[in-house]
Amino acid sequence: MTADPARRNERSRRAILTAALDLLGETGYADLTIEAIAARAGVGKQTIYRWWRKKGAIILEALVDAMAAAEAVALPDTGDLAADLRTVMRATVAEFADPKLSATTRAITIETLGDESLGVQVRDQLLRPQLDAVKDRLRAGRDAGQVRDGVDLDQAVELLFGPLYHRWLLRTGPLTDDYADGIVELAVAAIRPDRK
Amino acid sequence: MTADPARRNERSRRAILTAALDLLGETGYADLTIEAIAARAGVGKQTIYRWWRKKGAIILEALVDAMAAAEAVALPDTGDLAADLRTVMRATVAEFADPKLSATTRAITIETLGDESLGVQVRDQLLRPQLDAVKDRLRAGRDAGQVRDGVDLDQAVELLFGPLYHRWLLRTGPLTDDYADGIVELAVAAIRPDRK
Repeated sequence: MTADPARRNERSRRAILTAALDLLGETGYADLTIEAIAARAGVGKQTIYRWWRKKGAIILEALVDAMAAAEAVALPDTGDLAADLRTVMRATVAEFADPKLSATTRAITIETLGDESLGVQVRDQLLRPQLDAVKDRLRAGRDAGQVRDGVDLDQAVELLFGPLYHRWLLRTGPLTDDYADGIVELAVAAIRPDRK
Repeated sequence: MTADPARRNERSRRAILTAALDLLGETGYADLTIEAIAARAGVGKQTIYRWWRKKGAIILEALVDAMAAAEAVALPDTGDLAADLRTVMRATVAEFADPKLSATTRAITIETLGDESLGVQVRDQLLRPQLDAVKDRLRAGRDAGQVRDGVDLDQAVELLFGPLYHRWLLRTGPLTDDYADGIVELAVAAIRPDRK
């Protein structure tokens, strides 16, 4: 019996994904090449091209893998909704403000805008777990009487991440802790129960 | 004296921009070619390449020109802030929901993500006038006591357009009148004065 050449070798796959993320951190996305990934992983370029069409797809799979290996995404629940949202928004704003992380996210965004199936993959595998974690925290807040009944929780999540995404993509303003706190203050005001 | 060959001929420039926008409407951005624009405008391809590097830059200049020719952007002011914001958000959501307009905006977004100087141009010439018009309407609302003192008006604008942008880019939900109204309801709740 001969091995199926199309079947992925798990050890090579992991070596390639690890090499890709390491190199990404060292050189940034723009200078990342398939050649360099192959050399670092100790595989041939053809091995990589057999499994992925381009570097955006490799990085995406590496990030999805890293995410799956991490603890399940969950927000802190200290009972103070605004404080917990500030924690997650400050961390997220800091990621977008980091030049290296930002360059990677920008590169992935370009790829996904031009390729709808990749866009769906990024949305469902990378983004959705993070958005759902925030939605879960908002639902717990609603159960605790801190969120108005009838608020659409998907829209409430967008109220937090939409402004950040807009500002980051369009480069319309600074990305700071103050900014993160400002978004949370407005979002919490938008969803809180009507006062009697 | 010889004419400066680098100096743009205004009649040719206008013919090219008009041809570009007409063809964009007919074929969509993906199938738009420099060849087709040149043929429609009655100029040589080289004339176009002398002035613009790629089709994204032509479309951007055409849109900026069209915007400058239009009436100054201003929102309605009926005295009812929520109603006026619903008008503008419904119109904006409809633009993003339109497949042809959406494809153009998506293409321009890809270009601007990959080219920071083009990004700054789009932000300042195309986007800023629209965001400022909404900011002016919010300022009028604040003067009329419908917006809390101390609300950052730039953040309030992002509270309206950020969620839409997020949903459109990431394809996370439907773009409907109900959605537009939902955003406005949340944003207005976020910025209204504290009740006594």
